[in-house]
Amino acid sequence: MAEEVKLFGMWASPFSRRVELALKLKGIPYEYIEEDLSNKSPSLLKYNPIHKKVPLLVHKEKPLAESLVILEYLDETWKNNPILPQDPYERAMARFWAKFIDEKLLPTAAKVSHSTGKEQEQGVEEVHQQLKILENELKGKEFFAGQSIGYLDIVAHVLFWFYSAGEASGVNALTTEKFPIIYEWIEKLIKIDAVNECRIPKEKHQDFIRLRRESLKSASK
Amino acid sequence: MAEEVKLFGMWASPFSRRVELALKLKGIPYEYIEEDLSNKSPSLLKYNPIHKKVPLLVHKEKPLAESLVILEYLDETWKNNPILPQDPYERAMARFWAKFIDEKLLPTAAKVSHSTGKEQEQGVEEVHQQLKILENELKGKEFFAGQSIGYLDIVAHVLFWFYSAGEASGVNALTTEKFPIIYEWIEKLIKIDAVNECRIPKEKHQDFIRLRRESLKSASK
Repeated sequence: MAEEVKLFGMWASPFSRRVELALKLKGIPYEYIEEDLSNKSPSLLKYNPIHKKVPLLVHKEKPLAESLVILEYLDETWKNNPILPQDPYERAMARFWAKFIDEKLLPTAAKVSHSTGKEQEQGVEEVHQQLKILENELKGKEFFAGQSIGYLDIVAHVLFWFYSAGEASGVNALTTEKFPIIYEWIEKLIKIDAVNECRIPKEKHQDFIRLRRESLKSASK
Repeated sequence: MAEEVKLFGMWASPFSRRVELALKLKGIPYEYIEEDLSNKSPSLLKYNPIHKKVPLLVHKEKPLAESLVILEYLDETWKNNPILPQDPYERAMARFWAKFIDEKLLPTAAKVSHSTGKEQEQGVEEVHQQLKILENELKGKEFFAGQSIGYLDIVAHVLFWFYSAGEASGVNALTTEKFPIIYEWIEKLIKIDAVNECRIPKEKHQDFIRLRRESLKSASK
């Protein structure tokens, strides 16, 4: 492999899946290495000593961490099939919404999945507000990126996980009725081959979510 | 003004100062509008309805929020005096460390400034570990960006605030003895005109920190 791209990922990590999806959409050949996060490999610890997390991309022996940083790197290094818009203002908007998803929406969603009762209800309400803001951004467009899938769709496709995680945990924040535009967008996404190749089996994911919730519950007792 | 750049900022916000510094280093003329964050202007609320925060850059009537997003936009729109490196891997590293500062170091530092006793001590220890990691990145270089000031220096110059905030709050996490390389870097930075123009008066800043700590204390009573 001339380009020597390795991706260290974990099947249930939406952040790993983002990088996989970008690699597939851009047609970059890569070797995938599944990490057992309860027993991290020496390679992961060597290449990502700061965060020790997946996804980790290694390109020609040079390591890169953080999914959003990796997406920009892929787009700057392999110019074909660009995922970021070309216009500086549109690029800025894509980055703004990506930050919104990672720094607002996902932390709120994590709070929901780790809480119960009143606190969980408040969290769900907050997720709804944030999803409404995001849905508004999608209004009138085929994809977040416009006419076809792009950077912000790759970042936002973490919302897939909301459905199966919601069903498994009994807290479905992303209902079809409440967010029809997001739902339509997901329907469009799953018709794309690369997206389908990156989907994780729903049942396996739901078992994973249930197990994690149980271990968190017993840890907090 | 042909370019019509407006920056809505707040004198004590290191994030506003980042954008100011980038504008100065790139030689972009701009109009500065000081915001009273206790009584936000209709313009700020109109242009930044999601976060309602500074810094807010308005370029030809188009609004941009989030300091890191704004820095990239400035560099892509005004090609002169680039602040980001040209090499994709170096760009990725600059973005990685910028995320480290904003998502790891600053939240830990905020925890220190809002806590007391044992919790504060643990926070200081954590800040020290993170500063050591950052100092290691600076080792053997003139600036984070290499031979001259660049993107990561602009992002990291928030560390200035650690000194005066530390003195004012009585918790000085960034001591000269513990972090000689960061201290040397600050000494080099303050010799740069644009950096000096963006510095805030130490006494005014310390009064501000003290007042904020007092108001937080009485709010938590």
